[in-house]
Amino acid sequence: MKRDYISKNVIRRLPRYVRKLDDLAKAGIERISSGEMGKQMGLTPSQIRQDFSCFGEFGQQGYGYNVKALREEICNILGINKRYSVILIGVGKIGQSLIENFDFARFGYDFKCAFEIRKELVGQEIAGYPILDRDIQDAYIKENNIDIAILSVGKEAAQRVANTLVDSGIKGIWNFTDVDIEVSDPSVIVENIHFSDSLLVLGYFMNSRDMENEE
Amino acid sequence: MKRDYISKNVIRRLPRYVRKLDDLAKAGIERISSGEMGKQMGLTPSQIRQDFSCFGEFGQQGYGYNVKALREEICNILGINKRYSVILIGVGKIGQSLIENFDFARFGYDFKCAFEIRKELVGQEIAGYPILDRDIQDAYIKENNIDIAILSVGKEAAQRVANTLVDSGIKGIWNFTDVDIEVSDPSVIVENIHFSDSLLVLGYFMNSRDMENEE
Repeated sequence: MKRDYISKNVIRRLPRYVRKLDDLAKAGIERISSGEMGKQMGLTPSQIRQDFSCFGEFGQQGYGYNVKALREEICNILGINKRYSVILIGVGKIGQSLIENFDFARFGYDFKCAFEIRKELVGQEIAGYPILDRDIQDAYIKENNIDIAILSVGKEAAQRVANTLVDSGIKGIWNFTDVDIEVSDPSVIVENIHFSDSLLVLGYFMNSRDMENEE
Repeated sequence: MKRDYISKNVIRRLPRYVRKLDDLAKAGIERISSGEMGKQMGLTPSQIRQDFSCFGEFGQQGYGYNVKALREEICNILGINKRYSVILIGVGKIGQSLIENFDFARFGYDFKCAFEIRKELVGQEIAGYPILDRDIQDAYIKENNIDIAILSVGKEAAQRVANTLVDSGIKGIWNFTDVDIEVSDPSVIVENIHFSDSLLVLGYFMNSRDMENEE
């Protein structure tokens, strides 16, 4: 099935729905109306109905959404049932922190191992996951048909390492380098964590509020 | 001056414009049309013109945008000239990595120091910045009129520490805990880095591509 074009804004809201539905389930809530959900999330009911209508019919007019069923539907849309395999390239502090703290399994991802260029770290483990030598990274990706690489190397190495990942047949790159990398194969998906974008947005809202107060 | 309502999508694109304009300036480009900029950023020319029109008149019909002037205008909108002061709470791996790698000054922020609860780290430095005792955090924020706190404590402490920050008079929280914190003072701005949202979006696009290929 080919999906019709769906706006990036809708897609970026899907993980927020998953988090909200997790909270609702935890609180023992089984059904929720688009109105109540919108109120809790700062969205209009019609926006919520429109978002879900991109993917088919989820709710029943007048009955609201079944929290558990809706979560499952959204997880299917997000590919959580696919159990994509994940490796990490570059065991710096961010990389270490992700391995130790990020719950890959909870979101349906299968974290495998990390690769590092510093020989003194190779052979060690982080949170039970092995640190392997970058020399065998290429062969490992091909042999194990790895889906996603987390790129957390230094800025200066970012593009070069991304090239080797694409050549090895990686299908997605989760990019923590704060460098806008380019991929020669357009079918490789790149998702960036841009720390600076987030801080600048915080600054925007603080500045806007200051301007209002100065009136 | 009170700003009219501006959509979050426009606001979230502003940092991307800054990065693009930085790249253009580095490449020696002085002027750019909305058409060319749109092509490079995957946006339509009219979207770009509309985005900027939210903040006044920046370009000149037929002449395009002056790269340097446009960057300055956007930086003003983002409050980069305000030199907001920043402290970090919780010197875990993410916190350490931010202090060592994030160029606060480049984006107009004034990073001051970090606070930590583990006494053995107090008195040490990271990248030249002191690690202070969490016991004096409250007094420090008040005395130095600190604007922004980076929250990088453990999940279980996130809400409690956020409460103390709000009580101390902090104006913005950059939240790395992956917990949706609540603030009792609605004037406090919270900006979240949600790693999981980003990974799920990557999974969405990979899943969509797989579904197309399976046709």
